[in-house]
Amino acid sequence: MNEKVLQHIQFCIELDKMKSVYRQTILVDGSREETDAEHSWHFAMMAMTLFEYNVIPGVDLNRVLRMALVHDLVEIYAGDTFAFDEEGNKDKYEREQAAAERLFSMLPQAQGTEYRALWEEFDAEETPDAKYAAAIDVYQPFLNNSVTKGHTWVKHGVFLPQVLKRLEPVRIATPALYEYAMTVLDDAVAKRYIKTK
Amino acid sequence: MNEKVLQHIQFCIELDKMKSVYRQTILVDGSREETDAEHSWHFAMMAMTLFEYNVIPGVDLNRVLRMALVHDLVEIYAGDTFAFDEEGNKDKYEREQAAAERLFSMLPQAQGTEYRALWEEFDAEETPDAKYAAAIDVYQPFLNNSVTKGHTWVKHGVFLPQVLKRLEPVRIATPALYEYAMTVLDDAVAKRYIKTK
Repeated sequence: MNEKVLQHIQFCIELDKMKSVYRQTILVDGSREETDAEHSWHFAMMAMTLFEYNVIPGVDLNRVLRMALVHDLVEIYAGDTFAFDEEGNKDKYEREQAAAERLFSMLPQAQGTEYRALWEEFDAEETPDAKYAAAIDVYQPFLNNSVTKGHTWVKHGVFLPQVLKRLEPVRIATPALYEYAMTVLDDAVAKRYIKTK
Repeated sequence: MNEKVLQHIQFCIELDKMKSVYRQTILVDGSREETDAEHSWHFAMMAMTLFEYNVIPGVDLNRVLRMALVHDLVEIYAGDTFAFDEEGNKDKYEREQAAAERLFSMLPQAQGTEYRALWEEFDAEETPDAKYAAAIDVYQPFLNNSVTKGHTWVKHGVFLPQVLKRLEPVRIATPALYEYAMTVLDDAVAKRYIKTK
């Protein structure tokens, strides 16, 4: 049997673990937390569907879709770190670098390097593709919060400036979606799903 | 507020229902059935990772990835029809056409038409992109079965010719992956996960 085929098969089976990494965000129907695999799919679908709102020049949607697919892979070993968890975010970098080393070395070298580079580009939020990707990655859980009575905001007692800071990539890449987000925030503050003091 | 933004937001929220459509395939860790959203992500990741095994000329991987993302969307309303369920497959076409009508009309017309065309192209399995996509769509649950003691094969008492028929797109598009599948089948038959008579 072709050795490389077996190596690829093993990697594809390992990918299944993305269905067992649960996030803070709950489904719109409220039944449970969403998984990393589900979030990555939703993110990719939204990146495709909402692309017309992007104002950053030079974004290649095809690369953004690939970025969406791989952007959370290291969480297979590093776990999901909640955006508003300051303690957990302190050692996030080290944990994810170790996870990347372990996961991407399962692939033939050129391909492992390619996936890792896509993830690191996403994480740095510096290129046009990564800036648009960052906006949609944030917007997906934001939308779910907006229709689940601010689930994660309430659960973690989040303050308005924290949410605004988190929405910065949306303001930069997709102003029309940011404008809608502001109406959601007004409502969430009025209903006390988000704290102001 | 921009009317089109609201329309897009509604569609993106509707997409969340793909996380509540459960399939027959179970996760590699055996904990539960996978969802359509998870399957679509896994399919897209595998299409990207295994592309070098494709032998069909003229396949555009970027289009295949978009196909993978949208290929099961109609199941939001039509539900998942198990591949080996002959009864359920009888009215599958009508159910899915009605679902497509309902779902894609939520989008601005050009975009709705684009998504529907991608789905119909996938479903027809005639273009190079759709042929490669069909192979990977089948290979993902096949791999999960191969490491979960033939879960769905055993559960539904599936016969070898049914599995071989289902693997036809794999034989055509990705012979090296088909060769590996044959070793899996030998083992599954020896262990009586798949019936031969």
